[in-house]
Amino acid sequence: MAKELKDLTKRADNYSQWFNDLVVKADLAEQSAVRGCMVIKPYGYAIWEKMQHELDRMFKETGAQNAYFPLLIPKSFLSREAEHVEGFAKECAVVTHYRLRAKEDKSGVEVDPSAKLEEELIVRPTSETIIWNTYKNWIHSWRDLPLMCNQWCNVMRWEMRTRPFLRTSEFLWQEGHTAHATREEAEEEAQKMLKVYAKFAEEWMAVPVVQGVKSETERFAGALDTYTIEAMMQDGKALQSGTSHFLGQNFAKAFEVTYLNKENKPEYVWATSWGVSTRLIGALIMTHSDDNGLVLPPRLAPIQVVIIPIATKPEQMEQVNKEVTPIIEALRQKGITVKFDDADNKRPGFKFADYELKGVPVRLVLGARDLENGTIEVMRRDTLEKETRSIEGIAEYVEQLLEDIQKNIFEKAKTYRDAHIYECDNYEEFKERIKDGGFFLCHWDGTAETEAKIKEETQATIRCVPFGVEQTPGVDMVSGKPSKARVIIARSY
Amino acid sequence: MAKELKDLTKRADNYSQWFNDLVVKADLAEQSAVRGCMVIKPYGYAIWEKMQHELDRMFKETGAQNAYFPLLIPKSFLSREAEHVEGFAKECAVVTHYRLRAKEDKSGVEVDPSAKLEEELIVRPTSETIIWNTYKNWIHSWRDLPLMCNQWCNVMRWEMRTRPFLRTSEFLWQEGHTAHATREEAEEEAQKMLKVYAKFAEEWMAVPVVQGVKSETERFAGALDTYTIEAMMQDGKALQSGTSHFLGQNFAKAFEVTYLNKENKPEYVWATSWGVSTRLIGALIMTHSDDNGLVLPPRLAPIQVVIIPIATKPEQMEQVNKEVTPIIEALRQKGITVKFDDADNKRPGFKFADYELKGVPVRLVLGARDLENGTIEVMRRDTLEKETRSIEGIAEYVEQLLEDIQKNIFEKAKTYRDAHIYECDNYEEFKERIKDGGFFLCHWDGTAETEAKIKEETQATIRCVPFGVEQTPGVDMVSGKPSKARVIIARSY
Repeated sequence: MAKELKDLTKRADNYSQWFNDLVVKADLAEQSAVRGCMVIKPYGYAIWEKMQHELDRMFKETGAQNAYFPLLIPKSFLSREAEHVEGFAKECAVVTHYRLRAKEDKSGVEVDPSAKLEEELIVRPTSETIIWNTYKNWIHSWRDLPLMCNQWCNVMRWEMRTRPFLRTSEFLWQEGHTAHATREEAEEEAQKMLKVYAKFAEEWMAVPVVQGVKSETERFAGALDTYTIEAMMQDGKALQSGTSHFLGQNFAKAFEVTYLNKENKPEYVWATSWGVSTRLIGALIMTHSDDNGLVLPPRLAPIQVVIIPIATKPEQMEQVNKEVTPIIEALRQKGITVKFDDADNKRPGFKFADYELKGVPVRLVLGARDLENGTIEVMRRDTLEKETRSIEGIAEYVEQLLEDIQKNIFEKAKTYRDAHIYECDNYEEFKERIKDGGFFLCHWDGTAETEAKIKEETQATIRCVPFGVEQTPGVDMVSGKPSKARVIIARSY
Repeated sequence: MAKELKDLTKRADNYSQWFNDLVVKADLAEQSAVRGCMVIKPYGYAIWEKMQHELDRMFKETGAQNAYFPLLIPKSFLSREAEHVEGFAKECAVVTHYRLRAKEDKSGVEVDPSAKLEEELIVRPTSETIIWNTYKNWIHSWRDLPLMCNQWCNVMRWEMRTRPFLRTSEFLWQEGHTAHATREEAEEEAQKMLKVYAKFAEEWMAVPVVQGVKSETERFAGALDTYTIEAMMQDGKALQSGTSHFLGQNFAKAFEVTYLNKENKPEYVWATSWGVSTRLIGALIMTHSDDNGLVLPPRLAPIQVVIIPIATKPEQMEQVNKEVTPIIEALRQKGITVKFDDADNKRPGFKFADYELKGVPVRLVLGARDLENGTIEVMRRDTLEKETRSIEGIAEYVEQLLEDIQKNIFEKAKTYRDAHIYECDNYEEFKERIKDGGFFLCHWDGTAETEAKIKEETQATIRCVPFGVEQTPGVDMVSGKPSKARVIIARSY
């Protein structure tokens, strides 16, 4: 067994450490020299590229177009929307100067005090302000609406405690910003994009999600409503995996964006914004992976099939190549990504462990006996089940197997998730049971006070008012006051 | 004729103003609220996406993988490589603080002086330093080499005078950074990537380029050799369109990156870096476009074919739809991007001018007479030639026409370029003729003094020692000293 694998912390021993270990050992990312900023390594970035590719296609299908807005935002822009500045001005990277100069003693460089900016610039934590300041010039008449732009970019929030993918000072994301003529249209857009995210999470990441709407306390700073998809990790904690905001006319008013309606009267524009980030990679890892390493959904795996030969003599290698070449070709014909690892400096056992660690969904092994029998060994990463099959028709079999794995890991995650959603009406019971994780469907009186009390006493928060749950009135488990609906309460990342 | 088009400055009147006008009027980009930073609008960004798509494919074909490194670089990193700090520390955005706070009078936010960084961070002007600091941990043995990473990202250089696409404080680019075991391999890589850029410029952008190597003065800060592709704009000026650097062991030594060779002895690693940026869009515009607007190469045009109906009665519109639907389908089957513009709020004349302005390569117009005759009008943007053709087989015809346009604009640009390359051996003559633009093949004595004199007296610089030119020794036109080879001298963007 490879050294890397042996050192991987077991989930049962320390789930959090297991995650940190796995990110590094599976070559996904590592800490950089800059506090809180990670380097996304090629294997991790390849997953992000696959995510981007599909999400981008889905966004464009809704009519959104990509564009690019400046990295730096004038400080004063943040103040324009009162709640927004509250939420985002606190922890951000501030550019104050535009030049360095050599130190007098030539020992290095220092800030040139004569190159101080008149107004400081903020590295974007999110781009509503600079985008709405731009939209002002793009929107004049109802014919200019809807306007739907998305940008793929880096953003920065100066987080104090960071964890790779889950919470980093710099992260990669996409942010969609749309402008509409009516309230109804904007609300519809925000909900439509939530559904796009949910579909992507479930069908591509194989991560089941609860869709719902945030409480006022948990809303995006400047939004009238924040819609969310919440996933459950293997420790029962929630991970907010994507959000879509109905912003009302807040930003239109802050940046004076009006349009002439069909009656030629000026009206403020209605807005949404929506985003997902490299955090999705964290969700992927913590939903499916196990003590042997990553388990990746086939639709997002950078390598879908690895083929490993076990040959001891050179003449066997020749025969292996003869057998393997048509298999590789047949798989690639089907659009499947295959790696043939015939490196001779690593033993098969090391390779097996390494590709398990990296979560490659299907492993094919060709040994001496297989060469005699015209067979090949097939292992699926999700269950670690092995079987020996005839080489004939193997490409078709693997194609189907990849689909089965995709479905199986989704079902497995969903079964786990559903088994850990509980209705709970007793606060004492809740306080005890929340320690073991899970989503708790509880009645809530709708007040921020109750919400704050729960958070303080249990570290759990209201994740959302879930959609698609039949709601009946009840009694808040904390305050005893009447409640209209159950919300999902959980500890979260 | 549309108002937008009428207002476009003529190239002959003011080439520079024509460019600035066109960028805005064709909806490619606009100035943002942040000094020197542009907003890339959806139409401009769509061109960049097409460029990225093809370049990314070409990079991966050479074995490079994408990754992502931090936006911010510790100030001290820049000082590690002596020439590098000279070249890049001067004009850069410096992050000094990580928090804002509300002003006491609540009138806005201000920098929180208690949140000063111990060491300032620089918004990356290029990423050699942070990447080589990372490579140190990735490279141990000869088996880890070559290491070839690329990243698509934003960078920032605090430029004093900016122009959209050509020179902006923030720009988008890709930067490849490779590590090799031997000098030969690294030199080969740097030259290979130059060829990739040249191929992309010529085959996709239809922009002919001169490949060559920079003089020492014009080298990238920290490189032993900088290879370049130089394109000629319509005013005879040069535009450096892509560079590939052989970095020797400079960064390996600065960041202590060694590997164990096959004899188990430590050796410093050899490096290259290579990049192209959104500047390529500037090259595209200034090579092909005309007084009517953009002329885009079909392979990079966001919309390749536009179909405009001219119908005055509703029942005609129905017939138009019946005729057009199979044409659209047939074109899309061929992978051609088609827009059917049946908007009824703009007159056909406005649409014609607008799509000319936007450089859509082929326009199809269906009028009342065409409906009777089973014909359609075809216009090609490059020559503005119109012809009426039978609807039958129109998709095949358009497919071929797009290829013809791609070839034609390349040939046209090459003919222009070749007609403006001059051998010149007399400095007085040179000083006179350089005013009209063009590339001058002149003998150079190889000294920085001569180079500086030419630059000071004519604003022209040595663009490169061109490859593929038969060289014979001669005499420097300025100093009269012996010269081994002719270089290309030109004014440049």
